[in-house]
Amino acid sequence: MTVRGETLIGSEARRGTETAFRAVEAATGEPLEPDFPGSSHADLERACALAEAAFDTYRETDPETRAGFLETIAANILEIGDELVTRCMAETGLPRPRIEGERARTAGQLRLFAGVVREGSAVEARIDPALPDRTPLPRPDLRLRRIAVGPVAVFGASNFPLAFSVAGGDTASALAAGCPVVVKAHPAHPGTSELVGRAVQKAVAACGLPEGVFSLLFDAGQSIGQALVADPRIAAVGFTGSRRGGTALMAIAAGRPLPIPVYAEMSSINPVLLFPGALATRGAAIGQAFAASLTLGAGQFCTNPGLILAQPGPGLDAFLEAAAAALKQSPAATMLTPGIQRAYRESVARVAGHGAVTVVAEGPEGAATQGRAALFTTDADAFLADPVLQEEMFGATALVVCCSDLSAMRAVLDHLEGQLTASLHLAAEDHAAVRDLLPLLERRVGRILVNGFGTGVEVAHAMVHGGPYPATSDGRTTSVGSLAIERFLRPVCYQDMPDTLLPAALQAANPLGLPRRIDGVPERR
Amino acid sequence: MTVRGETLIGSEARRGTETAFRAVEAATGEPLEPDFPGSSHADLERACALAEAAFDTYRETDPETRAGFLETIAANILEIGDELVTRCMAETGLPRPRIEGERARTAGQLRLFAGVVREGSAVEARIDPALPDRTPLPRPDLRLRRIAVGPVAVFGASNFPLAFSVAGGDTASALAAGCPVVVKAHPAHPGTSELVGRAVQKAVAACGLPEGVFSLLFDAGQSIGQALVADPRIAAVGFTGSRRGGTALMAIAAGRPLPIPVYAEMSSINPVLLFPGALATRGAAIGQAFAASLTLGAGQFCTNPGLILAQPGPGLDAFLEAAAAALKQSPAATMLTPGIQRAYRESVARVAGHGAVTVVAEGPEGAATQGRAALFTTDADAFLADPVLQEEMFGATALVVCCSDLSAMRAVLDHLEGQLTASLHLAAEDHAAVRDLLPLLERRVGRILVNGFGTGVEVAHAMVHGGPYPATSDGRTTSVGSLAIERFLRPVCYQDMPDTLLPAALQAANPLGLPRRIDGVPERR
Repeated sequence: MTVRGETLIGSEARRGTETAFRAVEAATGEPLEPDFPGSSHADLERACALAEAAFDTYRETDPETRAGFLETIAANILEIGDELVTRCMAETGLPRPRIEGERARTAGQLRLFAGVVREGSAVEARIDPALPDRTPLPRPDLRLRRIAVGPVAVFGASNFPLAFSVAGGDTASALAAGCPVVVKAHPAHPGTSELVGRAVQKAVAACGLPEGVFSLLFDAGQSIGQALVADPRIAAVGFTGSRRGGTALMAIAAGRPLPIPVYAEMSSINPVLLFPGALATRGAAIGQAFAASLTLGAGQFCTNPGLILAQPGPGLDAFLEAAAAALKQSPAATMLTPGIQRAYRESVARVAGHGAVTVVAEGPEGAATQGRAALFTTDADAFLADPVLQEEMFGATALVVCCSDLSAMRAVLDHLEGQLTASLHLAAEDHAAVRDLLPLLERRVGRILVNGFGTGVEVAHAMVHGGPYPATSDGRTTSVGSLAIERFLRPVCYQDMPDTLLPAALQAANPLGLPRRIDGVPERR
Repeated sequence: MTVRGETLIGSEARRGTETAFRAVEAATGEPLEPDFPGSSHADLERACALAEAAFDTYRETDPETRAGFLETIAANILEIGDELVTRCMAETGLPRPRIEGERARTAGQLRLFAGVVREGSAVEARIDPALPDRTPLPRPDLRLRRIAVGPVAVFGASNFPLAFSVAGGDTASALAAGCPVVVKAHPAHPGTSELVGRAVQKAVAACGLPEGVFSLLFDAGQSIGQALVADPRIAAVGFTGSRRGGTALMAIAAGRPLPIPVYAEMSSINPVLLFPGALATRGAAIGQAFAASLTLGAGQFCTNPGLILAQPGPGLDAFLEAAAAALKQSPAATMLTPGIQRAYRESVARVAGHGAVTVVAEGPEGAATQGRAALFTTDADAFLADPVLQEEMFGATALVVCCSDLSAMRAVLDHLEGQLTASLHLAAEDHAAVRDLLPLLERRVGRILVNGFGTGVEVAHAMVHGGPYPATSDGRTTSVGSLAIERFLRPVCYQDMPDTLLPAALQAANPLGLPRRIDGVPERR
């Protein structure tokens, strides 16, 4: 495979006709070949028309076909080999082990959803058999299943060029649900996007699926993405990115003649709570682990630990000292794009220059494309007084808020917007204090973790990568893990329908072997 | 119990301080005692503050306590006895058997959700145990459960004074999920609302729950309802009513600093498809059954059959003749409110006066508070040409669209907005034609029923009372049936949390005896 700068529309690959852009080598700032001409509105029209045409066929493919398709995508991505890794490294500045790990994660995610499709409980098949002799009125035969919502628009994320881009979590869960997908590639990694897009396109053909199941559009600006969300054939949106970008898409979706759901994963500063017992016994060790988590991937994780809450004392001093020592040694790292790097520098400068903020440590200055780590402190009153201190600094910088006691810590937490994660560092003697704060934490975040950091997001059945607004646009869901498939399904009920007209999922013989509930009780199989 | 015209705030009952209104006796148009002074914004403030204060306690009540609470509400409603029935009949003009039936349905609905709470699968408990030896990285212990979203605002519906009002489906499912509820009573049946509200209030006290679990507000206008949706402590909204009302609430909810979901069930004309085989053998019988469904409850059902699609021929003639004969005999019926009656007359007059519409039958003229049945015909081209013909006429009037062939029927269906139901009348020889239309039907409606009408909405596990916009604001859910509880839940993940700090639902010993999934597989119990 080679990167050709082509838009993928169904089974075709064609040069776009709009303003061209190039990827930028993250480390050097130099443009990378080839040109990517922007996709046109005619391309968008054709992609949506094909997706719409494919929908009824694709959503009714049997579980084995759909699972096989997901597995084929995974295999095709791995088959690209080193070309994908090197292109992705160049476009993102992320190191080889990270890209290789993310590639494995992407393949694993596709396979997880293959398993979800085969297992079948996401269909939520329910049967309430007729009760013809019930008085005063007989009960009809009622059967429910979930079906795919329709074609889904997916926006590639800058910070996960594989796991949350063209064939990432949103695409995998939408395809698993039975939705065709039209991806708007992130302009920071168009070459990676094209390579992965071709892997998906090949899988569509190999599995004999209608070509409209997948298309891939390019645009350095916002015109195509906005038109995609507004297109009447698009039924839902998956997005990972900035708060400004996410809320703009939410507004477009809500303002359509037929509003649609947007699943946007936006901003989070992921509070870390250091409880006294933990600090007293292992403040320095936590500080070291924290510095490692903060600088992972140049701090460009949605779950990056950007806010530390702790009570002052020798434990916190040890934490700060260890963290500062580690961060001072931590080399500046190449950031994903010049825009992200600039925004990071600006947000760090704004906080560093804040009158109530003290600089604890800064990492070594780096190249013009790099971001350096930083650690600041302030106190609870100052944090509560200025919303600027709650804004995400997307990169390897965190703010420590010294809280005089547990109630100050609670006040800061209570003041926080919705978050993806909260990390609690605790010892046995902290349990009472933790128990006291848990109800508040549950209301603020999607995932609460103990004695660790949120930067590792396991792809699993029990994962929640979500959280109350503005961490996401819709806190009722997750964008990582098997539960993510529910975002793209809706229930339909069939009443008194002859068996021969029922979808296979609800026929008496259960030809798909799905788990089903009869009168609310799991069916014996 | 007596109707006193009091707002219920937590455990208190107090007279509101704003402009008073009275219920109107539906049959006579005469005001009914007593005055209902409107609730003030201070009342709203107090209700929301109490709901917020009750939330953390109430959401963590054990399943048995919550189920018992729902059952106590049901018992308390029945215990009111005939006072509730007669007041409700007076306020709505609905006949005794309907009100008694609706009361039974309301109690049954509360008991269904008690069962859902005891059974526990709505908690969606999932455990992915730690894999400390996994390479390259160990897997942490991950546990997921769903928790209540927060206090819920519920709007009473005019057309279901019991089953979709103060203790109706929205309230029952929100309470079952663990959400405190603040109800805005529908001003058309304030006495009914107060009586039921007191039954809920009594149950809160009897079950030892925090008083803020339930409050009931009155307002003849829109100020309190709008302020309720805008209140930062409200986390979700349940509404059944007009499209204008529902979309106004959606706009308020989307414009909040922290947007919240609105579950609004709005307008639907519920297409009925008469297939040739069915018409040929039993056109007249279907016509009679249709007339009965159309006039049920003066046609004031969300699922009223307002649109008939059929091909011309002797079968359709027989259908029209039988339906016309029945409707001409069908007495005019008291409508719920003067406003609904007026809107009905206007919408019927608009269609009756349409150049492409023919009047097939009209029922006898009734009193000033009544609506009379009507049946109109038009053809597919006219229907496709004018959106006015697709507007809901809330009452006992339907429009028959003559479709020259199956493809014209498909074109009309394709042109329809989202609907709650579609009814198919068919015989064995129609199966091929039906199969051809099913994919389109699944995309347009929430429930597809065969050889019946949608006016009966069974409260069951497999029911969907929902559908694509504008039938509802959110086609991913249902407002009737056990699946409705999911509207008020969101997932939270706990990572590496000590067993003693975990919620009971996720502790190793499973003290609540919930159904759970381990690594995605149902746990053996």
